[in-house]
Amino acid sequence: MSDPATDVIAIGNAIVDVMAPCPDETIERLGLVRGGMTLVDTQRAHELYDAMGPAREISGGAAANTLAGLAALGGKCAFIGQVADDQLGEVFAHDIRAGGIAFSTPPRAGDPPTARCLIFVTPDGQRTMNTYLGASQFLPAAALDEAAIADAAVLFLEGYLWDPEEPRAAMRRAIAAAKNAGRKVAFTLSDAFVIERHGADFHAMIETGEIDIMFANEVELAALTGISDFDKGIDDLASRVPVLVVTRSEKGAVAVRDGERADVAAEPVDSVVDTTGAGDMFAAGFLFGHVRGRPLGECLRLGAICASEIISHFGARPEADLQALVAARMG
Amino acid sequence: MSDPATDVIAIGNAIVDVMAPCPDETIERLGLVRGGMTLVDTQRAHELYDAMGPAREISGGAAANTLAGLAALGGKCAFIGQVADDQLGEVFAHDIRAGGIAFSTPPRAGDPPTARCLIFVTPDGQRTMNTYLGASQFLPAAALDEAAIADAAVLFLEGYLWDPEEPRAAMRRAIAAAKNAGRKVAFTLSDAFVIERHGADFHAMIETGEIDIMFANEVELAALTGISDFDKGIDDLASRVPVLVVTRSEKGAVAVRDGERADVAAEPVDSVVDTTGAGDMFAAGFLFGHVRGRPLGECLRLGAICASEIISHFGARPEADLQALVAARMG
Repeated sequence: MSDPATDVIAIGNAIVDVMAPCPDETIERLGLVRGGMTLVDTQRAHELYDAMGPAREISGGAAANTLAGLAALGGKCAFIGQVADDQLGEVFAHDIRAGGIAFSTPPRAGDPPTARCLIFVTPDGQRTMNTYLGASQFLPAAALDEAAIADAAVLFLEGYLWDPEEPRAAMRRAIAAAKNAGRKVAFTLSDAFVIERHGADFHAMIETGEIDIMFANEVELAALTGISDFDKGIDDLASRVPVLVVTRSEKGAVAVRDGERADVAAEPVDSVVDTTGAGDMFAAGFLFGHVRGRPLGECLRLGAICASEIISHFGARPEADLQALVAARMG
Repeated sequence: MSDPATDVIAIGNAIVDVMAPCPDETIERLGLVRGGMTLVDTQRAHELYDAMGPAREISGGAAANTLAGLAALGGKCAFIGQVADDQLGEVFAHDIRAGGIAFSTPPRAGDPPTARCLIFVTPDGQRTMNTYLGASQFLPAAALDEAAIADAAVLFLEGYLWDPEEPRAAMRRAIAAAKNAGRKVAFTLSDAFVIERHGADFHAMIETGEIDIMFANEVELAALTGISDFDKGIDDLASRVPVLVVTRSEKGAVAVRDGERADVAAEPVDSVVDTTGAGDMFAAGFLFGHVRGRPLGECLRLGAICASEIISHFGARPEADLQALVAARMG
């Protein structure tokens, strides 16, 4: 097995975030699931967009955000995801390539349009996401570059994209390609509701050893394990995956790698503006350290620093120079 | 003449800003005019977009930005401008309507697409703009709602849109409609290069009394009057327009109304992130006070407070609650 040319190749939603601040009342009035991710159809997407204040558009998508962070840290990355042949598709493709990430999935002609995520951000910085999957749900297994997957140290997959059938099939094929090449598979659980819908799949993948690195937050850990006690949940899941990383917002994060556990405190921030992408960016920092064989505590610290950058401004893609930030914080 | 139903109706570019931070070297390498606005064709727009880092999309346009500020302050506004029937056109229309501004110009079918402005923001917060006019340049005079123009206290026009022929003809017709109804016309000079191209038109409009309120910055004042001394330039132009407002970045601003002059200092800000829209937002604050008959110094102060909000974040549309900000600053 030769050294991989790429650090991380990811499959995820190719989606543009449409984000606007809103008062707390709006969440209730529109019947939204505060802090969650809900899939919406065309009609509901229009309804919610009409109810939204003046917004800004910033490329998003969990796995793509993680790659943006990794690339900003100096990692070599590639992305696989489906945009449509339209203006938002061009925006997504521009932003990911401009971040130095290889992206060659051809745009899909005709309807539906490129995916978008309508994000309502309440004054506490919490984000409530409403995802219109659009073209993203039609990522065909045929779009996979299996040679590229075999040439990446880690294949990173997002749970959000487990809902639609075609990308799920594509991700299953990608896992096989990575495993055949002796590479590692990282999986982020994304959302408690995703686990409700697909928990059985995730458990099966864990049992067959298909997942080497698992990312979750506290709520997702409880949803997957069925254990409400945090430390017991960690013990349970860590006994079944080689690397487990669990984030807990302002309470920091925990990782267990081959039986070794490390904890990290949340990095202090002046003010939390928008938590969109916090978990994605934590994963970016952690993976950057992990693929370089850094000590577990250092991997966690990298995650915490990257997450602190993203929550201090609107949007899930880094604005600051992450390498400079890490150098300043870690010395 | 009945009381107008609307405070300000504006005609301007219906444009989406595509903005990204960049190092100072980029400006030189790409041959851009630092701090200026350059019109670009399709090919150059693609070239510059390819050279741009990961970006964010936020609705813009000088006059539209001013209305967004006015509406946020509690003013009643309407906008006239041409978008195409595409995704960026939907974004522009959503953002302006979500800001509480009436907007009923129908989108234009087919090519060219909705206008965009590629904005490179250097570390000092200076913005360098490259405008692809797209559909915006085809605003037909027939799209004007002359009854709406007659029913607004002020018709606000942006110099940027004086370049393309159709909107220029539309603006000339709008001026006539406003004047016939006994309303005031406000004009913002927009850019020194616009004055180079159309200074003769602007002088003619001043001489015939078509412009009641003129907005300029220091550089534009010098370009229009041909006088490099700031105070002499103010005296010269103020003798020819009833209301003159001139902004000078960190040096504050000056206004002369019917012979009375007032000065204001720049409002302090923690850090200048992006100056895009500073002049537009100054105009918003000033006009809000002016249409309500406030003292001249107070109009300037409103302008300075609004400008300070916009330069403290990316994008030319307000993020903070402007009414609360004004209340806190002015007591």
